[in-house]
Amino acid sequence: MTMNIDLNCDLGEGFGAWEMGNDAAMIELATSVNIACGFHAGDADTMRKTVQLAKASNVSIGAHPGYRDLHGFGRRPIAGLTANEIENLVAYQIGALQSVAALEGYKVTHVKAHGALSNVACEDDMTARAIASAIKAVDRNLVFVVLANSKLVDAGEAANLPMVHEVFADRAYNEDSTLVSRKKPGAVLHDPALIAERVVKMVQDGAVAAITGKVIKLRSDTVCIHGDTPGAVEIAQRIRAELKEAGIDVKPFKVAG
Amino acid sequence: MTMNIDLNCDLGEGFGAWEMGNDAAMIELATSVNIACGFHAGDADTMRKTVQLAKASNVSIGAHPGYRDLHGFGRRPIAGLTANEIENLVAYQIGALQSVAALEGYKVTHVKAHGALSNVACEDDMTARAIASAIKAVDRNLVFVVLANSKLVDAGEAANLPMVHEVFADRAYNEDSTLVSRKKPGAVLHDPALIAERVVKMVQDGAVAAITGKVIKLRSDTVCIHGDTPGAVEIAQRIRAELKEAGIDVKPFKVAG
Amino acid sequence: MTMNIDLNCDLGEGFGAWEMGNDAAMIELATSVNIACGFHAGDADTMRKTVQLAKASNVSIGAHPGYRDLHGFGRRPIAGLTANEIENLVAYQIGALQSVAALEGYKVTHVKAHGALSNVACEDDMTARAIASAIKAVDRNLVFVVLANSKLVDAGEAANLPMVHEVFADRAYNEDSTLVSRKKPGAVLHDPALIAERVVKMVQDGAVAAITGKVIKLRSDTVCIHGDTPGAVEIAQRIRAELKEAGIDVKPFKVAG
Amino acid sequence: MTMNIDLNCDLGEGFGAWEMGNDAAMIELATSVNIACGFHAGDADTMRKTVQLAKASNVSIGAHPGYRDLHGFGRRPIAGLTANEIENLVAYQIGALQSVAALEGYKVTHVKAHGALSNVACEDDMTARAIASAIKAVDRNLVFVVLANSKLVDAGEAANLPMVHEVFADRAYNEDSTLVSRKKPGAVLHDPALIAERVVKMVQDGAVAAITGKVIKLRSDTVCIHGDTPGAVEIAQRIRAELKEAGIDVKPFKVAG
Repeated sequence: MTMNIDLNCDLGEGFGAWEMGNDAAMIELATSVNIACGFHAGDADTMRKTVQLAKASNVSIGAHPGYRDLHGFGRRPIAGLTANEIENLVAYQIGALQSVAALEGYKVTHVKAHGALSNVACEDDMTARAIASAIKAVDRNLVFVVLANSKLVDAGEAANLPMVHEVFADRAYNEDSTLVSRKKPGAVLHDPALIAERVVKMVQDGAVAAITGKVIKLRSDTVCIHGDTPGAVEIAQRIRAELKEAGIDVKPFKVAG
Repeated sequence: MTMNIDLNCDLGEGFGAWEMGNDAAMIELATSVNIACGFHAGDADTMRKTVQLAKASNVSIGAHPGYRDLHGFGRRPIAGLTANEIENLVAYQIGALQSVAALEGYKVTHVKAHGALSNVACEDDMTARAIASAIKAVDRNLVFVVLANSKLVDAGEAANLPMVHEVFADRAYNEDSTLVSRKKPGAVLHDPALIAERVVKMVQDGAVAAITGKVIKLRSDTVCIHGDTPGAVEIAQRIRAELKEAGIDVKPFKVAG
Repeated sequence: MTMNIDLNCDLGEGFGAWEMGNDAAMIELATSVNIACGFHAGDADTMRKTVQLAKASNVSIGAHPGYRDLHGFGRRPIAGLTANEIENLVAYQIGALQSVAALEGYKVTHVKAHGALSNVACEDDMTARAIASAIKAVDRNLVFVVLANSKLVDAGEAANLPMVHEVFADRAYNEDSTLVSRKKPGAVLHDPALIAERVVKMVQDGAVAAITGKVIKLRSDTVCIHGDTPGAVEIAQRIRAELKEAGIDVKPFKVAG
Repeated sequence: MTMNIDLNCDLGEGFGAWEMGNDAAMIELATSVNIACGFHAGDADTMRKTVQLAKASNVSIGAHPGYRDLHGFGRRPIAGLTANEIENLVAYQIGALQSVAALEGYKVTHVKAHGALSNVACEDDMTARAIASAIKAVDRNLVFVVLANSKLVDAGEAANLPMVHEVFADRAYNEDSTLVSRKKPGAVLHDPALIAERVVKMVQDGAVAAITGKVIKLRSDTVCIHGDTPGAVEIAQRIRAELKEAGIDVKPFKVAG
């Protein structure tokens, strides 16, 4: 049996007149995309253009909800939100994308939390469960993209949502499977060859070396590739090439539409 | 056969810590409510609370999309939007409410444009058609609430959407069925008795006296009652009383859920 | 020699079409006011109206900068801001008010941080010093309103800014002079008589009983009275009455204009 | 006597994580810059970085106030604002920049309206006068940058503000000195040689050929060069080269600081 893997990428992260990343290039390399829904980036117009792009490339689309913080791009933890408030902001953003996608006759297949909302949820039960709860209420068939080994996995299981486990190609891991903070040295990997090699091992072995060297187990259904970093396109191309070399199929975890 | 009429009211027009109008009182008097969706007022939390309120009162809910203008409460025309951009903002807002409503197991039944977006659409084909087009793409069974005799009617017919025709209880009409600008004297009626009498006649006769005195024909399926004006509750109560007196049933044009 | 005290109140906390509190009533009871500057509440129009109101009442005005969070009313801590970013947001807001005040020929006399920004700064050196640094750069003669016994005091001293020490009339204190979290029982006092009695003692004795009963020392140059709580006006009136009874003059710490 | 001209450029038009244009390249070519103040683009952090850049290049800085419309980048006319509201938004933005500039020990020397606010003001007395009135109230020594032959000139004269008259290097003119709408063919010029030649003639002759061919008179103290268009740097370089060739000095209309 052939191994396979999905490559997911955050897209549609512009806002109004502002653009970010190279969506047209990344869509060629990803098999599923996560679209910003207007709270940390994106707006109704950007969302629609991104849906058009994804549909034209036959790539599945997911909602990428974040904290309400355009100025901080959703990267700043906002303290004090209740479970109810988290449910609300997640549901709102999913629904917004669903209807914008409907304008193009396309369907949202998954949900992946963005930035600080995701980071907080990976370690905080309440936040993780609120996200899962919102997804379930909106559509229990939406796939919940969860960071492998995080609280998101537990929350998705408790809500009985379909899930895919995500690993990061270009980020270092702590021994507890959390991502090394971007503020620490070595947190982000830049060498395409090294990154691609890690990805192949994650898929083949279900494991990765933590920043300490210790090997940790993690399930990998989808690999996050970034579009807004220098060398992003080259890195993604290298990952694809190495996966092919290793006989691993790159294909969407779920077909859109 | 008994005549009947729906009373619709704009609700959920707070934002964050700010409240507006007396939602708890108005929900008792309305049979359908239009919920602000975050662009001119409302936010995910306010929307959910308003859905809860509506569900508890068994009142049908509609999306109330407006221009993206919190500061101006959606009352300022924003020039230069393309048909595509109008479709996008309308679809986005409807979807956001649908998903927030799903958190409460409730369903959106209709859509009514807010403020300047509605005013512009009443006289501009492109805007009216873009709104109808967005509704149709999201869900062709959503009822389009249209100002009687406006371009919205034509747009709804062209899109083959279910429609209800709306009249205003407390606003003066020009001879061409447009509303008299709020900037002009006599534009807004304040006398509960006079307002209630007009409503009864609109329902019974399908007609109203324009500000010039000339009687104009207009179809009235739903009457808009305002919650944010002084005396709003008293006016709505008087309308209900006079309708009852006249043997006209007050009931929702569509049942929610 | 007669004792005296300033009563300060947060004003101009509406936004666009939304109002908050009873500014017209509170301005009669306060001797200095803190005006929201558009980040957590307020906008250019609200600010100008509030300046007009303050000028007409001959009350001194201060900038009341908060985190950039209209939806959360500046009450949610936003993590991850650098000292530089805090300086920027504080300077921006002070300058905005200065120029809006200039439209009315009035002058900003002081600065008091709002909500979560203030709470964080009271315990975090970096934040406190960044606020003081911004004030100093904009105008070293602006009075820095600091919570008594907080890190704000140290920051103001280090920056050599003129300062007034603030106490809260209706909030319980911990033994370390921090305010008891609003989430805990007893955090907010509601009894006008009790509140007024505490204020008189704070002014006369420079001390207050913490929630544990232990008496803590604190310098009180200005007492914060709230305009957005039920009974706000009655509480402020009672404070004024008790201060008068005790022979304490209520007057501004600094004259505006 | 040597002729001279200022080259002004809009800078700091990013927002949060988003960037726009090539500020570092343009600052080398401009002698004065207009900094977005947070309403249509820019934020406190972007503003400060732009002030730092301008100070390092010894280039004078101006406030570039626009309508409150981040999503539309201030390019959409927002109808219905009163003179008072326009004064408020202009004063707010100037003050915000003044205080952020103070963090760097730098001073704002001028004000130039942005986008739709400028376009509207060029033809609408009320708007033009409100802008001038705000500038005057904030600081009557601020230079008002006005489109040559527009209503802004009249408003600046009525307010007795120091003024510099601006011409556009890369835009076609109508016979009445208004800019040809960007929606019309030929509105924007792209050929660096042609653009540079026009600029030299505008400075030497105080005249330019309208799109109809008719020569119109216009005073040119400063030429607007754009940083966000393709070829912007090359165009500005060509303008500088041709001006030098023609013996015209490129220097700021006012020295900053």
